[in-house]
Amino acid sequence: MRQAQRSLTLRTTGKGLLEFTGKAQAFVRESGISTGLLTLYCRHTSASLLIQENADPDVRTDLAAFFERIAPEDPRRYVHNAEGPDDMPAHIRAALTQTQLSIPVTEGCLVLGTWQGIYLFEHRSRPHEREIVLHLIGE
Amino acid sequence: MRQAQRSLTLRTTGKGLLEFTGKAQAFVRESGISTGLLTLYCRHTSASLLIQENADPDVRTDLAAFFERIAPEDPRRYVHNAEGPDDMPAHIRAALTQTQLSIPVTEGCLVLGTWQGIYLFEHRSRPHEREIVLHLIGE
Amino acid sequence: MRQAQRSLTLRTTGKGLLEFTGKAQAFVRESGISTGLLTLYCRHTSASLLIQENADPDVRTDLAAFFERIAPEDPRRYVHNAEGPDDMPAHIRAALTQTQLSIPVTEGCLVLGTWQGIYLFEHRSRPHEREIVLHLIGE
Repeated sequence: MRQAQRSLTLRTTGKGLLEFTGKAQAFVRESGISTGLLTLYCRHTSASLLIQENADPDVRTDLAAFFERIAPEDPRRYVHNAEGPDDMPAHIRAALTQTQLSIPVTEGCLVLGTWQGIYLFEHRSRPHEREIVLHLIGE
Repeated sequence: MRQAQRSLTLRTTGKGLLEFTGKAQAFVRESGISTGLLTLYCRHTSASLLIQENADPDVRTDLAAFFERIAPEDPRRYVHNAEGPDDMPAHIRAALTQTQLSIPVTEGCLVLGTWQGIYLFEHRSRPHEREIVLHLIGE
Repeated sequence: MRQAQRSLTLRTTGKGLLEFTGKAQAFVRESGISTGLLTLYCRHTSASLLIQENADPDVRTDLAAFFERIAPEDPRRYVHNAEGPDDMPAHIRAALTQTQLSIPVTEGCLVLGTWQGIYLFEHRSRPHEREIVLHLIGE
């Protein structure tokens, strides 16, 4: 049994879902670990992780619209406004999604379903560099 | 230290919460692993996982009603409607709950609280076969 | 490769976010494990776990207000009212956040981001004793 760990930096272009399934799968393959558990950890509180459908891009559009609706940019709703109108909604959207995801690995592959992709969900309006830590344990 | 892995197929009867705590615990028992970590992974984007109260069924009724209210079936709200009016709300409800859960194991038992059950949350109206991957690591 | 496990009891003072990053980090340090994965598991369905900003306390105020707004204490909305008006909203808020969190460990430290803290999110109005199970695997 052994472990592998890596830090991945993703550059976002502002609000929205950025797929990085290929990078996660490449890390698993390069590790040589065939059976195990991959954990993805997002080191930020205004971006998060999400498994979502990777077929129809409209799904991501509708998801983004949903989060705009339930946690809108409206400074009157929030006390914390010092970092801009998109900051507090970003923290709420991160709380409602995932900071961490773990995915089993079989025969060197993530056990993702046919339509599942791994996404970084950027909640801030401006582009950011986001750091994801990947941890793999197995054999 | 060793691992065990299994795929579990659950047949849902349409929208709602389906408990499968017993099946998860049986997998742990059969593995012979006494101390470790069980990970449950749902291979779908319109069904998800949830730990919830297993005592009063009214809790599940109210939970379902809550998700109907915040992510209603209303085609005017969504661009993605090709797979039916229940599909986009299903993706939103999956994003708000869990695709994956990890639960520590002690003395061969999941450390669930007294009132906690493990549920598959079906978000589509029609019955589906859903696949959950179980991964256990420990000794 | 080895494991360490501990149960942590946290006393809440009613609704709100209680940070316990230091206790989680202390458990990692005392275990002597340098590289690995820490899993935190909350044994309750009316309290949950959350990674959130630990800098500006206004963020926690706004987060709490958000959850009051989307899952209000309003008995007319719920069938399950026997345990008090705060109980069903507590189950909903727990479903929308996390029962479990896993965080990679590098050089004996949790890989938390600069502004990330680990919080227990109490959803009931009265103080409660909450039990968190900590599981660490690594070497």
